[in-house]
Amino acid sequence: MILNDAIQEIVDNVSAVSAELDQENVEEMLKVLRSSDNVFLMGQGRSGLVAKAFAMRLMHLEIGVYVVGETITPAIGNKDSLLAISGSGETSYIITTAQTAKKRGARIIAVTSYPDSTLGKMADLVVHIKGRTKIDSEKNYIKRQINGRHQSLSPLGTLFEVTTLIFLDGVIAQLMADMGKTELDLKQRHTVLE
Amino acid sequence: MILNDAIQEIVDNVSAVSAELDQENVEEMLKVLRSSDNVFLMGQGRSGLVAKAFAMRLMHLEIGVYVVGETITPAIGNKDSLLAISGSGETSYIITTAQTAKKRGARIIAVTSYPDSTLGKMADLVVHIKGRTKIDSEKNYIKRQINGRHQSLSPLGTLFEVTTLIFLDGVIAQLMADMGKTELDLKQRHTVLE
Amino acid sequence: MILNDAIQEIVDNVSAVSAELDQENVEEMLKVLRSSDNVFLMGQGRSGLVAKAFAMRLMHLEIGVYVVGETITPAIGNKDSLLAISGSGETSYIITTAQTAKKRGARIIAVTSYPDSTLGKMADLVVHIKGRTKIDSEKNYIKRQINGRHQSLSPLGTLFEVTTLIFLDGVIAQLMADMGKTELDLKQRHTVLE
Amino acid sequence: MILNDAIQEIVDNVSAVSAELDQENVEEMLKVLRSSDNVFLMGQGRSGLVAKAFAMRLMHLEIGVYVVGETITPAIGNKDSLLAISGSGETSYIITTAQTAKKRGARIIAVTSYPDSTLGKMADLVVHIKGRTKIDSEKNYIKRQINGRHQSLSPLGTLFEVTTLIFLDGVIAQLMADMGKTELDLKQRHTVLE
Repeated sequence: MILNDAIQEIVDNVSAVSAELDQENVEEMLKVLRSSDNVFLMGQGRSGLVAKAFAMRLMHLEIGVYVVGETITPAIGNKDSLLAISGSGETSYIITTAQTAKKRGARIIAVTSYPDSTLGKMADLVVHIKGRTKIDSEKNYIKRQINGRHQSLSPLGTLFEVTTLIFLDGVIAQLMADMGKTELDLKQRHTVLE
Repeated sequence: MILNDAIQEIVDNVSAVSAELDQENVEEMLKVLRSSDNVFLMGQGRSGLVAKAFAMRLMHLEIGVYVVGETITPAIGNKDSLLAISGSGETSYIITTAQTAKKRGARIIAVTSYPDSTLGKMADLVVHIKGRTKIDSEKNYIKRQINGRHQSLSPLGTLFEVTTLIFLDGVIAQLMADMGKTELDLKQRHTVLE
Repeated sequence: MILNDAIQEIVDNVSAVSAELDQENVEEMLKVLRSSDNVFLMGQGRSGLVAKAFAMRLMHLEIGVYVVGETITPAIGNKDSLLAISGSGETSYIITTAQTAKKRGARIIAVTSYPDSTLGKMADLVVHIKGRTKIDSEKNYIKRQINGRHQSLSPLGTLFEVTTLIFLDGVIAQLMADMGKTELDLKQRHTVLE
Repeated sequence: MILNDAIQEIVDNVSAVSAELDQENVEEMLKVLRSSDNVFLMGQGRSGLVAKAFAMRLMHLEIGVYVVGETITPAIGNKDSLLAISGSGETSYIITTAQTAKKRGARIIAVTSYPDSTLGKMADLVVHIKGRTKIDSEKNYIKRQINGRHQSLSPLGTLFEVTTLIFLDGVIAQLMADMGKTELDLKQRHTVLE
């Protein structure tokens, strides 16, 4: 099924990104997450859902965290950080928000496929998560043509969004180890009201 | 316009509820809100929006607050309280949630039109906010018939929802006075990221 | 209680706005709501909650409606309209969004306290909902001083937000009458999954 | 880094699930999605975010879709279906909701790790997405012990949630092919208001 090909394309991207991760860069990110009074998370569309999935686990780890746009999110300050997820790094709402956060002294972490984007350039720290690149697209296009298929297997931001989610779940595993937290610790913070 | 009649019906309900408020009951509510580690808020549908509008202002007052169902809401504990908004007091999801919260030792505040409902009966404190009553409905029905109108001016839970919102905004004014907070204090907590 | 004074201040504002409504302007608004393929609603913070409360009732009336930022909201087109709620009319995210919608041919309805704001000026139709005005503030300030009170009774955007909600619930009553819809019709569209 | 191990554990689970997919079962699911008037989606916590990510893409494909709990979600009917995502298949809110939907004649699709759960048993169609199994846990536990690590690499529902997301993105690719939709078609439905 095409379904299996699409899953394979996603898995390949995730594995490639995992192999290319820069350990120093990741450690710097972990340091910012753990040293911030509160980490503010944001993304638009499906990237916003990824931000929320990460926020939930950070809360389970007792790291202070807020999601931009939710009800109880307070003003950001100079001991906080903003982690913004944007494949293109050019989402206008995210750039405006990051500029406001920066002016108020918060540190900015950009998670993006384009380190040279507007968001990437203004960030204190950039985590590079490759999404669909031109070369990938061509390779896949040829493969699909051979099979008589012309549709995209992972349309729009799919590769970036899913790969970012899995990378951030890896970050949670790393934080658990670094902070000496067990699954039971997370479970005790997990909401019981649903 | 019917529009003005509908607004009048809402205003009349709000004024009636305000006149009948039981000061001791309200003071007990204020005490629970201020003495809880965190206040968890919930409601379904439009009552849920009212819960969020109240949550935003409690956050501005630096009262610890979470909205049930939002991303970063942790487990509730025995130093917390749950304020549940339900006109009928019979919304099944709310009852289940309140039962869980009660078992974990949290205090339950019910805001409802029916103090004798399942939610009302299980609550530690009931705030009675009158919505549409049978008598009201009949009076209005006659008035509307005289005018040749048969539609409802405030359909479904409208009266309860709007009256509860305004009552809770009154609670905010009271808390500001009691806590010595000014509008500037609130402004400084107000989100800047939007 | 201060609580009752705060409720009175809100009720007074609602009544004043109701008395000053321009019938022609309201009828133009009703026409836009009923003639749009879909009405897109937006607001930030508590104004966003008001937008959602209105959206729910429009859906009950079977008027096509989407909330900007929710999961299934599609691209806006030239047969749609955007109703934007902003007290100041200067919320940057709302202005950017309204500009995009306008470029794509959608009609813009601004609900604001400031018809001369950036949002008000770009709108095809402005509904003026008075919030706190300078004169009100002074009168209230004197009244509060006489009573030895210096806090605001309805902080930040409270008056605008609550008054807008009640105005829009009036619009629903008007639409019900105009469309010949009964409360039972609304009930049949009301979600059963909660 | 532990981070890479965690990513590997997720990738392994995704690949295993992909290899074991039952084509007939998937085709039945595609048929239900395409023949429903509207597909209602739900999940709690991170599974709810996965439901939303899928809903967004279904909307891009012009399949009628609603998310349970969002503002404009109407009553479900007997030409609709409910796709419920629950790892355990025992989330009480989801079971109650599915029962209501079933009574009203909607078809139920369960996406779960436990086909024999309460949700699985009541569903018309079960899609089995393996999460963490006991055997996996033991194998991983030994591996982690050898490496002197005792923390979980993918805590709580992580494996189920991420694997479900990728499976559903595969379903989108399959639907695009089956429906003759290109990425450009999706782009034209993609929200422009953010």
